[in-house]
Amino acid sequence: MSRKVLIVGGVACGAKAAARLARIAPECDVTILERGDYISFAGCGFPYFVGDVVKEYKDLVCTPLGIVRDAAFFRNVKNITVHTRTLATKIDREAKTVTATNISTGEEKIYPYDDLVLATGASAIRPPIPGCDMNSVFTLWTMPDALAMKSAVDSGRVKSAVIVGGGLIGMEVVEALANRGISVSVVDLLPTPLPALVEEDFGLRIQKYVEGKGVHFYGGEKVVEIVGDGGVVSAVRTDKRTIDADMVLMAVGIRPNTAMAKEAGLELAKNGTIVVDDSMRTSDPHIYAGGDCVQTKHLVTGKPVWQPMGSTANRQGRVIADAIAGLRDTFAGVIGTGILKLFELTIGRTGLNDAQAREAGYDPVSVLVHEPDRPHFMPGMGAMSIRLVADRNSRQILGAQLMGNGAVDKRLDALVAAITGRLTVDLLADTDFAYAPPFSTALDPITHAANVLRNKMDGLVRTYSPEEMAERMATGTPPFILDVRTPKELDLQGRLPYDSVNIPLGTLRARVGELPKGQEIVVYCKTSGRAWDAISALKIAGFEDTAILEGGITAWPYEIK
Amino acid sequence: MSRKVLIVGGVACGAKAAARLARIAPECDVTILERGDYISFAGCGFPYFVGDVVKEYKDLVCTPLGIVRDAAFFRNVKNITVHTRTLATKIDREAKTVTATNISTGEEKIYPYDDLVLATGASAIRPPIPGCDMNSVFTLWTMPDALAMKSAVDSGRVKSAVIVGGGLIGMEVVEALANRGISVSVVDLLPTPLPALVEEDFGLRIQKYVEGKGVHFYGGEKVVEIVGDGGVVSAVRTDKRTIDADMVLMAVGIRPNTAMAKEAGLELAKNGTIVVDDSMRTSDPHIYAGGDCVQTKHLVTGKPVWQPMGSTANRQGRVIADAIAGLRDTFAGVIGTGILKLFELTIGRTGLNDAQAREAGYDPVSVLVHEPDRPHFMPGMGAMSIRLVADRNSRQILGAQLMGNGAVDKRLDALVAAITGRLTVDLLADTDFAYAPPFSTALDPITHAANVLRNKMDGLVRTYSPEEMAERMATGTPPFILDVRTPKELDLQGRLPYDSVNIPLGTLRARVGELPKGQEIVVYCKTSGRAWDAISALKIAGFEDTAILEGGITAWPYEIK
Repeated sequence: MSRKVLIVGGVACGAKAAARLARIAPECDVTILERGDYISFAGCGFPYFVGDVVKEYKDLVCTPLGIVRDAAFFRNVKNITVHTRTLATKIDREAKTVTATNISTGEEKIYPYDDLVLATGASAIRPPIPGCDMNSVFTLWTMPDALAMKSAVDSGRVKSAVIVGGGLIGMEVVEALANRGISVSVVDLLPTPLPALVEEDFGLRIQKYVEGKGVHFYGGEKVVEIVGDGGVVSAVRTDKRTIDADMVLMAVGIRPNTAMAKEAGLELAKNGTIVVDDSMRTSDPHIYAGGDCVQTKHLVTGKPVWQPMGSTANRQGRVIADAIAGLRDTFAGVIGTGILKLFELTIGRTGLNDAQAREAGYDPVSVLVHEPDRPHFMPGMGAMSIRLVADRNSRQILGAQLMGNGAVDKRLDALVAAITGRLTVDLLADTDFAYAPPFSTALDPITHAANVLRNKMDGLVRTYSPEEMAERMATGTPPFILDVRTPKELDLQGRLPYDSVNIPLGTLRARVGELPKGQEIVVYCKTSGRAWDAISALKIAGFEDTAILEGGITAWPYEIK
Repeated sequence: MSRKVLIVGGVACGAKAAARLARIAPECDVTILERGDYISFAGCGFPYFVGDVVKEYKDLVCTPLGIVRDAAFFRNVKNITVHTRTLATKIDREAKTVTATNISTGEEKIYPYDDLVLATGASAIRPPIPGCDMNSVFTLWTMPDALAMKSAVDSGRVKSAVIVGGGLIGMEVVEALANRGISVSVVDLLPTPLPALVEEDFGLRIQKYVEGKGVHFYGGEKVVEIVGDGGVVSAVRTDKRTIDADMVLMAVGIRPNTAMAKEAGLELAKNGTIVVDDSMRTSDPHIYAGGDCVQTKHLVTGKPVWQPMGSTANRQGRVIADAIAGLRDTFAGVIGTGILKLFELTIGRTGLNDAQAREAGYDPVSVLVHEPDRPHFMPGMGAMSIRLVADRNSRQILGAQLMGNGAVDKRLDALVAAITGRLTVDLLADTDFAYAPPFSTALDPITHAANVLRNKMDGLVRTYSPEEMAERMATGTPPFILDVRTPKELDLQGRLPYDSVNIPLGTLRARVGELPKGQEIVVYCKTSGRAWDAISALKIAGFEDTAILEGGITAWPYEIK
């Protein structure tokens, strides 16, 4: 008799484990139980479906050839049995069975297994705010969510929307709704958008950017009520204001679907995710788990982490299939990579930020640069801010956050590989990235960031991050600020909100006598690239107490005069 | 008295070394001797200048702010002395001086140094073909070259051009000239374009591609004469044909400018490049060298290699400055990365190909896949072929070649970092690349390539590269070929030039009885993604002797029926 593999959940991890098993162990009898109507769908595409970039929901559930990945497809092409609308409710580990209910008929059935895979995913959190049960209050996690939300937008009756939660999904939907002509406001408990992705200075810049697109961001506010009449949403009331809204998206987070696993006595982590080993095996050797419902490992710190992402789920599904098929395979872990398109901006992160690095026992040094993504003479040039984090002792690259209108995703993935390979900042600076003018500058933005970080680590320069600069300026003895831009740039780009003196770099060596002796001098320009040359000019003239404002006026997130 | 640093050559490495020295050791007295009129120019931009993507030569020699990086700029901004039109002719290592001639005045002058930097670059090879002295026979290496060639094209009198040499520069100029309405032919001694970048199957596909753009490629031909009348080029005669031409570009390669170094008794490698240590120091401890004139180290093999690239030159310039300033810094080496834009195609490589890996003592396994760069439901989807090479024993990734109309440069740089970090194919498959639908598929093309390579290395599948397949078909007992595409695809994409049977994947399990027992079956489809599922269906039906054609019909470089 063939080996029975039962998989609960058929979206990313479950469908991948099944498909891989069908390929490497076709003798297995593979069955998927999926609570929803759809399997193997691209949930990450929902914001683009709502935004009408993806026209048909079918596009999210079909192969590139347009064939819907339904039960018949899985049967005919992959020899896998799929039961949709089938909710698994109970695991009997002794009997090695799962009880499941057919949602359409109410019929209960018992499915035996030799190996069980839990790919039960997660669910959107719907906080119990008064009014949250009304019709136009959505989450965007399941296919029915996506269909309902798109249908509401398609009706043309939604003029204004409030998104509760400025995280990844919330901000993806900002773009989707704004592009459909809807007035969008975001409310978040935290002060700035995307706090899990980027530091607060980037968040402030993102806030300014979306405000420039007509989007309101209300940070540090709490939604206290969704106001409506007869089930129709009319506004969202926060602890500070009332915002008109015909539609509300609750995007405050997700929680893992692990009640059944818990009831079966499988080991769970504190956050409710299932604990698995490197082969994705739970505390029961016949039960595997993967995807949004499990805890995984951080590749850099070695510590447990929860990273519910479609890409992670797919990778883990493969490992599960290999483990069941008896192949040697383990899941290496994750490093916290995330990415987001927001209008013309791309925002991403990978690895550890300063605080996480410190918590993990490193001595982090970080620096912020702003660089073009190709030579200024090539068409389509974009730019990006990169914050790069390394460990002072080992010089290992620990993390990076990036944002800009240039090819940010490219630099992010290169940094992902660099962190995975435990490159030092020195090796990263020498890494032989591909150069031709259509693709990068002779020294790639990553190379540049690595070199600036080396300069800082080696004590060749002192720098202030924007936040450190603001703190420094709030002290009783603020430094002298030297702005080495041209006058034209000042008009165009504005100035720091402090007293500063403007001496264009080209004339600095001649005018160095105008600077005060015995006072710290902080230099900046558009991106602080020229500030380097200014520092050298100051040094030779005997000014030793100098520093650079990282990223210049371009990366300055606060007030601009 | 301040330390005298004399730099011969002011383009990439020389200018970078000078600028870095001015920053980290402003007490140094830095002088650059440059034979040409221009310093610190972007030579890699010349093809884009000729193609009129870059309108003004000034754009190639100015800062992003539009300030020309001339002698006055270097003096005022960086405190560096620059002598242009100054040809260094002789090093006196005893006296620590360099003799140089002012090209304008003929005046000879002696420049003393404490540290000397040789950044003398390379020169374009002009093979002594009869007729090669005529006016419209160009090389494209120096600024005068670029100005002359652009001026010729701008005149509107060039209707047809022959490019001798189908390497990087030659093929960049193919696009430049074709975009300007010139009929372009390429002649190369080797059979296919870009032999230093990609394997022959990619080369054949590139040839077909450019031929589709109206460009002629004559591989395996030797230019024997440039024909003309009264100094005006009219044709190029090869050993096989005569090609009309109003203009000829000689792009057959470059040689390092090291005659002066040789005469001074510095150690040179067999190919004439200067031998340096990891600090870029030559055999004379007071003389450093970097850029196109030196031999450097391959990071993977540890062996000497020559990689004359602007990016490498810049990195080495920094190391030289650090060494002179007494900072601890070494150059890590290169891995043979190269990239090229060719109309809508991006073509790149990094690390070792199979032959190089074998020569370096590895046991290489490689695989070819063809993958989309984002989900089919997202606009702007492109695709790419990736050939990934790993070592069978250590499973270390050794190299990759990529080409396609998708975001190839992104995957290339991620692979550059992965190879630099000595990732195994297994770790590469688990690498936490950034996923969101605008940027990649849930499993990135790199992940997919790594997984297919693992499958091959682990014996889960047998595959044929296109070349292996062609060889296999030429044997006396060719395999049975199963094409699992839909009939519509066959019409659209064509077929392999062999007998094959078409059974669409969706019906294969039902029709498996139509296949011959006891014969090897090779499966393919559009990209051979579906071939995997077909193999599983065959396996369960008792067909064990199966294989997949890598990349399917899409990556097939030979005849298509």
